[in-house]
Amino acid sequence: MTAPIPFLTLTTDFGTRDGFVGTLKGVIWSICPSAQIADISHEIPPQNVQAGAFALWRAYRFFPEETIHLAVVDPGVGTTRRPIAVHLGGHTFVGPDNGLFTPMFEDAIKNRWPVEIIHLKEEKFFLPQVSSTFHGRDIFAPVAAHLANGIPLAKLGPTIIDPVRLSMPKPEKTARGWCAHITVIDIFGNCTTDLPAALLT
Amino acid sequence: MTAPIPFLTLTTDFGTRDGFVGTLKGVIWSICPSAQIADISHEIPPQNVQAGAFALWRAYRFFPEETIHLAVVDPGVGTTRRPIAVHLGGHTFVGPDNGLFTPMFEDAIKNRWPVEIIHLKEEKFFLPQVSSTFHGRDIFAPVAAHLANGIPLAKLGPTIIDPVRLSMPKPEKTARGWCAHITVIDIFGNCTTDLPAALLT
Amino acid sequence: MTAPIPFLTLTTDFGTRDGFVGTLKGVIWSICPSAQIADISHEIPPQNVQAGAFALWRAYRFFPEETIHLAVVDPGVGTTRRPIAVHLGGHTFVGPDNGLFTPMFEDAIKNRWPVEIIHLKEEKFFLPQVSSTFHGRDIFAPVAAHLANGIPLAKLGPTIIDPVRLSMPKPEKTARGWCAHITVIDIFGNCTTDLPAALLT
Repeated sequence: MTAPIPFLTLTTDFGTRDGFVGTLKGVIWSICPSAQIADISHEIPPQNVQAGAFALWRAYRFFPEETIHLAVVDPGVGTTRRPIAVHLGGHTFVGPDNGLFTPMFEDAIKNRWPVEIIHLKEEKFFLPQVSSTFHGRDIFAPVAAHLANGIPLAKLGPTIIDPVRLSMPKPEKTARGWCAHITVIDIFGNCTTDLPAALLT
Repeated sequence: MTAPIPFLTLTTDFGTRDGFVGTLKGVIWSICPSAQIADISHEIPPQNVQAGAFALWRAYRFFPEETIHLAVVDPGVGTTRRPIAVHLGGHTFVGPDNGLFTPMFEDAIKNRWPVEIIHLKEEKFFLPQVSSTFHGRDIFAPVAAHLANGIPLAKLGPTIIDPVRLSMPKPEKTARGWCAHITVIDIFGNCTTDLPAALLT
Repeated sequence: MTAPIPFLTLTTDFGTRDGFVGTLKGVIWSICPSAQIADISHEIPPQNVQAGAFALWRAYRFFPEETIHLAVVDPGVGTTRRPIAVHLGGHTFVGPDNGLFTPMFEDAIKNRWPVEIIHLKEEKFFLPQVSSTFHGRDIFAPVAAHLANGIPLAKLGPTIIDPVRLSMPKPEKTARGWCAHITVIDIFGNCTTDLPAALLT
């Protein structure tokens, strides 16, 4: 019997020009050589946490169970914002505690999934030197790779229950009909709203 | 003895910003976890079937035998255009029946390769819910992954013999010399024509 | 016991639109099916050897030991510039002899690593037909894949000791302080200089 293949995804605002994404993959493979890694997007508008949250949310549930999703849209890098790892709905998420996982938290609430959130404090799972500008490389990628190796979430730090959540507007019923919000305009010009199709039937 | 590694390629007009490509990879790995996936291009000009056809054509023959090439440039998504899978020259192609595989058909004619074309009708190889806007995710990616798992082409639907083919202009000999067509201008400004070097000697 | 996984990286000025990068991966997998391949950057400004050198340099040391780094920024393709392979510091580099590996040579000098440089002359490790415009596909990718298969460097051609090196300006101490050079401006606008932090303490 062979071990299951560890799958990871990457969602960042790094762009693909400067080599930062390749560096993440090098760090991951140095710790977990069997990792299979898919890019979700590296063109999140710089520091736009909500855009990153939606991009990851649209894709994550199509990945195999126990995929580890590394997401770095991190305007607070180098400040005291917490690095976290989250397990819910059979998926694990690693990144900054700045609201980036809000839509996944909403899925958990809607589906009554248990949620485990860890404040990443165990520095032995980081790179030996942690810079103040590139936590994707120095903290999040090595932690994600150790999780891919099977290290249990609970070994990475203490549980927290107060993650940062973005304020997400909800569609509202008005006298003139539903008032919803466009959450994304894709490359083809299609607009996705936050109005579930079920509300229209 | 180990099983051969299933290789897949992706050619689309999805861009890389919105996470659609990552979603395809998630769907593929959920069905065929050992798949190795290479991007050929996701910057085909939107809905430009001919540009997609040439991009795939330039690359496909450099991949290992039995690679599965998933191609989605699909202005007719949600209409009655047929989803198809094609086997020729040791390679398999999956995508819409809109001419996207024309240059590969020409290769088959030139080289006298047998061609097998299947109308993808067996819905049990699709995702459980098929949207009207994203057949790449809901039909083509799962079918490609099942093929990568070794499902025979013939199980996916009935054979057809009338695939859509683009009208491809040919170089013509004129009194003043050859009149050929530029098929692609690459990033360096190089122009490729449809005039085979052999005609010039 | 299983063989170690062969890791390769790609750094080019090919862009991602035309399918050239996918073609490199097809060639590599045709020769070394177990290769795991990471893109470092394909958006090196066209023919900017120094930018390619720095992009690779920032990333290479984060990859596992014995990774093979394929780099093609090659304004001299089709001329007499030599194709080379280099081993230093536990990493192997394959590409044109035009200065692209200069910062890695500097690392070797600083760290007193042995350096082995081979002029790639053994044509049996190339594709059967070598074009004059795409040595990435016809020479460098197949050579990198054969190295990934364990072919020793020495089998690929004769040793050379005079690789082309870029002239790299160094920071200078002046009466008014250090005069350094910006080596890269990243997507976030961060400027990296060639002034080591240690000089400032």
